[in-house]
Amino acid sequence: MGKNAANLGASLDALRALLGDRLATARAVRDHHAHDIAYHPPMAPDAVAFPQSTEEVAEILKICSAHATPVVPFGTGTGVEGGINAVQGGVCVDLGRMDAILSVNPADMDATVQAGVTRNALNRHLRDTGLFFPVDPGADASLGGMASTRASGTTAVRYGTMRENVLALTVVLADGRVIKTANRARKSSAGYDLTRLFVGSEGTLGIVTEVTLRLHGIPEASLAAVCPFPSFAQAVESVIVTIQSGIPVARIEFVDEVVMRAMNLYSGTAYPEEPHLFLEFQGGEAEVRAQAEKVQAIAAEHGGKGFEWATREEDRNRLWKARHDVAHAVKVLRPGAGLYSGDVCVPIARLAECVARTRADLDGSFLISGITGHVGDGNFHAIFLVDPDDPKDMAEVNRLNDAMVRRALAMGGTCTGEHGVGQGKMKFMRAEHGEAVAVMRQIKQALDPQGILNPGKVLPA
Amino acid sequence: MGKNAANLGASLDALRALLGDRLATARAVRDHHAHDIAYHPPMAPDAVAFPQSTEEVAEILKICSAHATPVVPFGTGTGVEGGINAVQGGVCVDLGRMDAILSVNPADMDATVQAGVTRNALNRHLRDTGLFFPVDPGADASLGGMASTRASGTTAVRYGTMRENVLALTVVLADGRVIKTANRARKSSAGYDLTRLFVGSEGTLGIVTEVTLRLHGIPEASLAAVCPFPSFAQAVESVIVTIQSGIPVARIEFVDEVVMRAMNLYSGTAYPEEPHLFLEFQGGEAEVRAQAEKVQAIAAEHGGKGFEWATREEDRNRLWKARHDVAHAVKVLRPGAGLYSGDVCVPIARLAECVARTRADLDGSFLISGITGHVGDGNFHAIFLVDPDDPKDMAEVNRLNDAMVRRALAMGGTCTGEHGVGQGKMKFMRAEHGEAVAVMRQIKQALDPQGILNPGKVLPA
Repeated sequence: MGKNAANLGASLDALRALLGDRLATARAVRDHHAHDIAYHPPMAPDAVAFPQSTEEVAEILKICSAHATPVVPFGTGTGVEGGINAVQGGVCVDLGRMDAILSVNPADMDATVQAGVTRNALNRHLRDTGLFFPVDPGADASLGGMASTRASGTTAVRYGTMRENVLALTVVLADGRVIKTANRARKSSAGYDLTRLFVGSEGTLGIVTEVTLRLHGIPEASLAAVCPFPSFAQAVESVIVTIQSGIPVARIEFVDEVVMRAMNLYSGTAYPEEPHLFLEFQGGEAEVRAQAEKVQAIAAEHGGKGFEWATREEDRNRLWKARHDVAHAVKVLRPGAGLYSGDVCVPIARLAECVARTRADLDGSFLISGITGHVGDGNFHAIFLVDPDDPKDMAEVNRLNDAMVRRALAMGGTCTGEHGVGQGKMKFMRAEHGEAVAVMRQIKQALDPQGILNPGKVLPA
Repeated sequence: MGKNAANLGASLDALRALLGDRLATARAVRDHHAHDIAYHPPMAPDAVAFPQSTEEVAEILKICSAHATPVVPFGTGTGVEGGINAVQGGVCVDLGRMDAILSVNPADMDATVQAGVTRNALNRHLRDTGLFFPVDPGADASLGGMASTRASGTTAVRYGTMRENVLALTVVLADGRVIKTANRARKSSAGYDLTRLFVGSEGTLGIVTEVTLRLHGIPEASLAAVCPFPSFAQAVESVIVTIQSGIPVARIEFVDEVVMRAMNLYSGTAYPEEPHLFLEFQGGEAEVRAQAEKVQAIAAEHGGKGFEWATREEDRNRLWKARHDVAHAVKVLRPGAGLYSGDVCVPIARLAECVARTRADLDGSFLISGITGHVGDGNFHAIFLVDPDDPKDMAEVNRLNDAMVRRALAMGGTCTGEHGVGQGKMKFMRAEHGEAVAVMRQIKQALDPQGILNPGKVLPA
């Protein structure tokens, strides 16, 4: 396992013969592929390959397999747990040139794309079909990357995550074999669910080259709303009642008082500096009004008195732009600082307690931080403002983040709701999964016996 | 691999020491566990174990693993592809006495049950919580069995299948290790999705002993409707438009003209003997009426002129009872005959063609048969009336069923939408999955190297 200078040379020679100038070894290209947006030490691959087809990826894997060369798949580099850093060097496979939309089937409400297509590119392409792809992790990530990290975001409460929205994958295995994990049937009981096995496997079991996705109808009407609450606990209680009532809210986002202050400063809004819920309703005209009225009533019963609607598209967009700009907004609280994003998910009954205890913990720190959450899923993020070059800041953020994860695990939650394991969450895998980690490792060993696929990620040594 | 008389004896001795009279070797008990409701040759296990806890199942597996004794898990025996027949003998593990509901978390909308709890038992238990478990395969199957076959049924179009509704499993592995596949967080990106790997693995990778399920709020209002169409193609077209419009129909069931005739004879209804859609809408009072009105308009545009609503509970129940009684009803067309149920699923754009060609094929046969379908999913069943003791009938039904499956596969569909592979669909696995079958086998080999778990099922030799 691992890299070996002679083997690597042979590998690169063979790859150069295959790809010509689509194999790059220039320092700048390698450095660009050495890290994502997190603060794990950059680790450059020895070369970056730019394949244009599944067949080329299969050839690359055959070569790397023959020489035991590590292979790291790369989408847009917008991950946050160091999942694409080449910790053992080797070849980075950048799927960015595999950006073809292969088919759209409006009647079946699905589309098949090459792994490098981004979600915004797909949605632009779909514009005239009346359909859209709803999963929205914030960044304009590639759909192969989103599948690989089991991404989700603000709309998961209504539309699910990549787990629910990937119908099938084309995957190249460590030895270069190509499989399709499923066909386009909406459901099947025909054997093991390989689709779900590869979704979220972060390139450690195979390289995703094509993705078949569920599409959804663009709703007839949308209505956004925002509501302050005296406490996070009351906001969460109203969310629990809303979901139990079966109201299919499209988005239910929490923003804490620190982030609201930043939002007002950055976006020029004048919201009270209190915990807020941001909501979106989608459906027929009458339905969305009915939904919003019900949620308004539920909110009022839980102390949410300032429920404000936005039906006009410009008001709705302004509201959601303010929410989406949070990552930029919080930087006004410490100009020049970098962001570090924590990510846990707990059963919703424990969410209020988990957030309250996390907020109290964060309040005791010298670091400035805010909390946002996809509250309908029990998923929340602590956003820390740090100087990544200051060891004191980094030690403190790691301490706070570790405590947040341990707290979530103790409440029956997970160490990552949507960011993935990468390098950052490996240390929590045993605490979360126990013996199941050994099962994951058996599967890894069966499918990648040399350990060439994205080594040093997901599974602790 | 396989059984060996000396080993088996040692196995049974050890199991008897563990379980006492909860290890049965009486002929009647073994015969009861020799088959499901399909016509695969009954194959009795050598003994039937009735464990009461996960720990006992773990001990059973340790013993069987030490002696390479085959192990077949058994829920309610209501499967239809011969999944529980003991084709290599060994020990049947009947989970029926593991019938405890371990926890219900109303705020989190989840419940954890032992594998032997049936779906109706769970729903009776939930009655006062305002929550229910929606997956409805017809039979009152055990939830462990439903997870193992990735079951679904009439409500999948709205609520999904067991794939979407299982949050976590406790699984005993071949060697007796016990794992939890996930915790109760609604979403997670922490490693490989073992939950989905075990859902649908039909006892070939491990034995499911506990299931954590998503629950849903009981809708405020329900409204059923029925509508005849001049052709199946027009019915399907109206379903496609309905789904594209984002109308969250709770059930959309197709019944063909043959089955409608049987239904009228059996249930005393007087529906026209034409293809029909049976629909159910769920939600708030106003929403369900709005939904039904929209679908009525869509149906009318596609030739569906006799759209009838049923809002009163008794009318709704009568309508759905008639639909659910189809399996009994069709028997009036050939008194004394047995049922054989085909099960395929295709992308919905191909559904009309697939059903029409199947109906034409069936019309050319001497066997009487009807077609019903979970049309929103592209899933349909051909129900054949056969004399299982008549080789001519069985040869013909196998011929027709094979042709139906090959047709579905050629249209990008699957050999089983919801019944599972068992023994009956093994022969189609390579045609459907190609090289991916080899990957499934690698996983099987990694987790069950001796091949003791439900041998002779799912994966072709």
